[in-house]
Amino acid sequence: MTSNVAPVPLEKATRLLNHGPTVLVSARHAGEDNVMAAAWACALDYTPPKLTVVLDKMTRTRPLVEGSGIFAIQVPTAAQMQLTFDVGHRSLHDDADKLANCGVKLFGIDGHDLPFVSGCSAWLACKLIPEKHNQQIYDLFIGEIVGAWADTRAFENGHWKFETADPAWRSLHYVAGGQFYATGESLVAPSK
Amino acid sequence: MTSNVAPVPLEKATRLLNHGPTVLVSARHAGEDNVMAAAWACALDYTPPKLTVVLDKMTRTRPLVEGSGIFAIQVPTAAQMQLTFDVGHRSLHDDADKLANCGVKLFGIDGHDLPFVSGCSAWLACKLIPEKHNQQIYDLFIGEIVGAWADTRAFENGHWKFETADPAWRSLHYVAGGQFYATGESLVAPSK
Repeated sequence: MTSNVAPVPLEKATRLLNHGPTVLVSARHAGEDNVMAAAWACALDYTPPKLTVVLDKMTRTRPLVEGSGIFAIQVPTAAQMQLTFDVGHRSLHDDADKLANCGVKLFGIDGHDLPFVSGCSAWLACKLIPEKHNQQIYDLFIGEIVGAWADTRAFENGHWKFETADPAWRSLHYVAGGQFYATGESLVAPSK
Repeated sequence: MTSNVAPVPLEKATRLLNHGPTVLVSARHAGEDNVMAAAWACALDYTPPKLTVVLDKMTRTRPLVEGSGIFAIQVPTAAQMQLTFDVGHRSLHDDADKLANCGVKLFGIDGHDLPFVSGCSAWLACKLIPEKHNQQIYDLFIGEIVGAWADTRAFENGHWKFETADPAWRSLHYVAGGQFYATGESLVAPSK
């Protein structure tokens, strides 16, 4: 863990996802690590914080989540656009060196046996809330967020700092065909 | 419906949500219309297209969705930031003229008995897929997208046009405390 990675209070954890970024999902089971991209991840509750993520049956990450009961969700940066696209379009099924070939470097956080992706702006450690019907019928997984961290260069004191941070820290919002939008300008609604 | 509102093929419907915008949820039941904001909405499947949205038990829109079994999800624009904030922070419970006081104008689309919000960039007509357990335990609602439309000034031929459209058309990504980020610059990952 680098010196810029700081814990985020769990009551603020959903703020890391509230702007709707594309995320990286990672998991570890039986000696295997994998990382995939997911545009379909979303906050679900504040207390305790929860999120949803869609994991297709074709993915290699899904059985790691089902096997271990835990997973990490992380928010990649504009600087990681190619990495994000590549982990979403290559499979461990076809490329045993997928992570290395995609430029993924992993790191650990004490107390969580999960492969966290270096260079992201935020990380969420999640415990799977087993919901067989949702998982089988909709590929929909629910996780309770049990740990949250952010790089203080991008998120600090409960707030994203995109207005002042280097644009390389902005989040990614995937559309299709290799195209993303970066998070843009800050707009503030005056209370009436 | 204005002349700029064009149907979007259902197989492209999830593209209207893929970048993770904050949305407006609207519903009609027993002569009552309401509109609320939701940052927690997400695509769920391509075929048939589906989405999830979190509707708190405190909202007045939720019983309209439960009562009618249908709802609309629409993508508000940067120009609608104040409207989006206001419909998310006022309730019909307290203000019978909420919609007028928030500046909401509604319009109809043939074949769908739903109150669509004028001025948005995209609209999705949804049929509730009843999942009592998800609704009761998680406030999580699943809808099948049965109709999709976009304003051609913002989305055309299956693609958002934020790069060339007026910035007032950009989507909103809510954070907290009245702060949003607009959708930002386009980034394209070269295929390797």
